Amino acid sequence: MKENKPTLEVCLTPELIHYFDLEGKIVVVIDIFRATSCMTTALANGVEGIIPVAEVQECKDLQNQGLPAAAERNGEKVEGFDLDNSPFSYQNPELKGKKIAVTTTNGTRALSLSQAAKEVLIGSFLNISVTCNYLKKQNQSIILFCAGWRGRVNTEDTFYAGAVIDALQNQFQIGNDASILASEFYKNGKDNYYEYLKESNHFQRLIRLGRQEDVEFVLQKDVYDVVCAWRGEDLKVIT
Amino acid sequence: MKENKPTLEVCLTPELIHYFDLEGKIVVVIDIFRATSCMTTALANGVEGIIPVAEVQECKDLQNQGLPAAAERNGEKVEGFDLDNSPFSYQNPELKGKKIAVTTTNGTRALSLSQAAKEVLIGSFLNISVTCNYLKKQNQSIILFCAGWRGRVNTEDTFYAGAVIDALQNQFQIGNDASILASEFYKNGKDNYYEYLKESNHFQRLIRLGRQEDVEFVLQKDVYDVVCAWRGEDLKVIT
Repeated sequence: MKENKPTLEVCLTPELIHYFDLEGKIVVVIDIFRATSCMTTALANGVEGIIPVAEVQECKDLQNQGLPAAAERNGEKVEGFDLDNSPFSYQNPELKGKKIAVTTTNGTRALSLSQAAKEVLIGSFLNISVTCNYLKKQNQSIILFCAGWRGRVNTEDTFYAGAVIDALQNQFQIGNDASILASEFYKNGKDNYYEYLKESNHFQRLIRLGRQEDVEFVLQKDVYDVVCAWRGEDLKVIT
Repeated sequence: MKENKPTLEVCLTPELIHYFDLEGKIVVVIDIFRATSCMTTALANGVEGIIPVAEVQECKDLQNQGLPAAAERNGEKVEGFDLDNSPFSYQNPELKGKKIAVTTTNGTRALSLSQAAKEVLIGSFLNISVTCNYLKKQNQSIILFCAGWRGRVNTEDTFYAGAVIDALQNQFQIGNDASILASEFYKNGKDNYYEYLKESNHFQRLIRLGRQEDVEFVLQKDVYDVVCAWRGEDLKVIT
């Protein structure tokens, strides 16, 4: 017999999100390397709001209207933009109180595919405990939506999904096979994130691009105590 | 530095196969519950060849031409066909020396998407060791293609992919993040397949359909010593 608990499911890439019914559910968008980690960093450091956009041109238009803008494709900053996709760029005090526009290879695509959900949260290790506590309080069905890498499954987003399951499993009904995969994957690496994830394709790509410090930063747990969600046109701190 | 070994990649569902370049590679199609396990059983028990077809009507046409035919959708036999998707049905001595036509929900779809490969093998636990030994001898790049469940990722096919990686990892370069997931997933359950996989969605569905014996049968290792592959229009024993 299935218990009468809210469900928790994992979607491993945007290519599979059409199999999920988002309506009435909380979707947590996960792009650990690095979009959702950067967004969390920005909001925790006083950025007023983040407008996520799917396309580079749309981001350019917002920059032309006066917003600081970040555009990343394939791990690198797109020429002509103010910000890249490094968490350190979002700690700049000059961004405090401002709205910024962001487009990235994977994270903003997953966000744009989440709009049918009741609520969209931004997932990162940097604020995992407060986010899990918030999810427990809502007691609503959840989809952990891994942004992946250009449609492909990746280890780091799946690992984060497994970490959330680890925190929430007593209160939720683990709903699909991808959740079981994520949960088991997390178990084997939970005592050493960095070593465990370093064979990941995107980890290796970021190391080649000289981004080791970014990777080390975003794999830290509970640096910030803000919960970040989509409200109106912006991503914001909601608690 | 990457070593100069052939690559081994995992595709977790047919929805992601377009990200893989199949040309020149060996694809192992995996549908543990139950299509590729049944095909292996049939061929090991003397069926001459299996014609896999994607559509029920196509299968009906072959039946009308005199071939014993199997059609399964959503775990159950389609009305009007000779055979269901249980491995026990394929041990019938009356099928010896005959060609049969088969269509299933997931397995034959994955087969139809594999045609660009250099060679297509049929994966199952029932002949895993001989299949892995064959793969070692070929020394060609491999894609382990999980048929999944109606486009979704499943645990049992991923688990088999992990078992093959466990056997081949010294000789191949493990190529994508899905391979790492499969490999870690296998590690945690390798000593007790049945218990480990029983939370899987499709395992539960088969139990509800009264198919527990099928599940127990297809989770046995090395019952048969035949390697099965696609040759011409048929799946056949090749060694």
